[in-house]
Amino acid sequence: MKEFDLIGRYFSDGGHTRKDVVIGIGDDCAVTNVPSNQQLAVTTDTLVAGVHFLEDAPAKSVAYKTVAVNLSDLAAMGAEPAWISLSLSLPTVNDEWLSEFVDGLYELTQYYSVQLIGGDTVKGPMAMTITAQGFIPPGSELTRSNAKPGDWVYVTGTLGDAGAGLDILQNKLNVAGEARDVLINRHYYPTPRVAMGTALRRIASSCIDVSDGLISDLGHILKASGCGANVHVDKLPLSRALTSAVDNAQAIEYALSAGDDYELIFTVGEEQRGNFETSMGGSSVKATCIGQLTGQAGQLSLLKDNQPFTPTNENGYEHTF
Amino acid sequence: MKEFDLIGRYFSDGGHTRKDVVIGIGDDCAVTNVPSNQQLAVTTDTLVAGVHFLEDAPAKSVAYKTVAVNLSDLAAMGAEPAWISLSLSLPTVNDEWLSEFVDGLYELTQYYSVQLIGGDTVKGPMAMTITAQGFIPPGSELTRSNAKPGDWVYVTGTLGDAGAGLDILQNKLNVAGEARDVLINRHYYPTPRVAMGTALRRIASSCIDVSDGLISDLGHILKASGCGANVHVDKLPLSRALTSAVDNAQAIEYALSAGDDYELIFTVGEEQRGNFETSMGGSSVKATCIGQLTGQAGQLSLLKDNQPFTPTNENGYEHTF
Repeated sequence: MKEFDLIGRYFSDGGHTRKDVVIGIGDDCAVTNVPSNQQLAVTTDTLVAGVHFLEDAPAKSVAYKTVAVNLSDLAAMGAEPAWISLSLSLPTVNDEWLSEFVDGLYELTQYYSVQLIGGDTVKGPMAMTITAQGFIPPGSELTRSNAKPGDWVYVTGTLGDAGAGLDILQNKLNVAGEARDVLINRHYYPTPRVAMGTALRRIASSCIDVSDGLISDLGHILKASGCGANVHVDKLPLSRALTSAVDNAQAIEYALSAGDDYELIFTVGEEQRGNFETSMGGSSVKATCIGQLTGQAGQLSLLKDNQPFTPTNENGYEHTF
Repeated sequence: MKEFDLIGRYFSDGGHTRKDVVIGIGDDCAVTNVPSNQQLAVTTDTLVAGVHFLEDAPAKSVAYKTVAVNLSDLAAMGAEPAWISLSLSLPTVNDEWLSEFVDGLYELTQYYSVQLIGGDTVKGPMAMTITAQGFIPPGSELTRSNAKPGDWVYVTGTLGDAGAGLDILQNKLNVAGEARDVLINRHYYPTPRVAMGTALRRIASSCIDVSDGLISDLGHILKASGCGANVHVDKLPLSRALTSAVDNAQAIEYALSAGDDYELIFTVGEEQRGNFETSMGGSSVKATCIGQLTGQAGQLSLLKDNQPFTPTNENGYEHTF
């Protein structure tokens, strides 16, 4: 199948361009150059209207989020983003919607120096798939499987905001003023932690991004690494917006189980902690230590004031089957 | 978003594996190695149920076709396929359907030595997106834009079969016996011309695959290269199955305008014709010369017995907007 007019009309002559792209949009394939001393990281994520974003979400947010979730996967691997391919399925062609979508897309590609190198536009239910590619020096990739008992558990930024934002948009939570805008923006326009991901190379022992909630995503690290964890819920980083909008118990619930924050959860061994503190010195993104890994494979123990803590929802927030 | 159980359950422990894949399915990204003397070719195609394939198409065919159309794009660029990422959107989980889908997928990945390196499974309308990646030596890529007036126009295999097969399945065409099976199979299980694509490197002046019909796809070469073409419809390669199923005029219509054949259209300059004949000597896939490029930009002239010929449908077969 070929890329029809849509690609030509909306995507062909804009966006950030990179010198390592030999052929971009417009032929059967894109052709690119991977630096000879780098490995290639590849990730694919699909967002479906009504499943992964609200049917009436602003087009700019849909574009932003589709790019951000993919760059977030690259960040969680420690990769530096380079190129994205977009497949866009739309039931109808709406010029205004598409222009806004392209604006959102290019805002992120420009900011992260990523080039849109190709894609496909098809008639179908509203959904978008991006494959993002980036570079990692050999041996520097941050996997889920390399954590060890005793490693410290960190998380970037603050947790739970995007989940509260979604609940506000769905009229499940009533919040006014600035906090409302902050929380909704965190849902609509997540920030992929790209610089943090590359800074953690050879420092973090494991890493994952928070798409489905802390419990669920930390669980993937525990499973892949054969570890357990003690997590102190009173140490979870909470935004002022969230704590001003809901009480502490609810804020903790959001932080533990709501998804779509796209912060990074990572582990750092005791022997790397000095390196880590040094390299984080200049970072604008805060990382908070929330607990420590244990040898009890698969056991995630939540603690509050050092006492066992039971969350209301232990399953995280799963979009899919 | 993470890959949930579906990926783990159906895709994680099978399929062809390659030594250049450092990390496959199961982490935030796949990590691979591109040979230092090769460029990377990347293509993305989406197939939507009811738009690109029949809602009741066998799962094996859906998988086969999704892989084949992407490998066909790599072939049209002269690239050697290496890896694919799959995004699978399904409304429900049907074990039997998924097992058949995986069988179809792995049959092709095995045959072409391609590894499935990752993907995403989401709940949504039935649709699948594959991003395929492959290698091309620098300067060897077959674009659409490098053809010159005087170059000869070739096409591989036979044209029109898949379109007739689709019409049979939709009860628009009544064909019995072996021809019926052959034509339906050409629709359900297209063959990407991978070996031919790499053999044409540095020989063909341009190349594209037939996804939307000869007129439409040759049109892309003419537009990109600023040429015209004379095409002799009496030279179009037609299968015995097609000519036994319909009369000559109908067969020519299918060959000109029906899509989904995934043959290659390519051009060869007079100075490369000797090289071309030599390198095609051992090929099991026939290439047929159907005409010649002209300097009349954008003008596609169809001829039959050297007289102007007007097809019924000049627009090709477009799936999309």
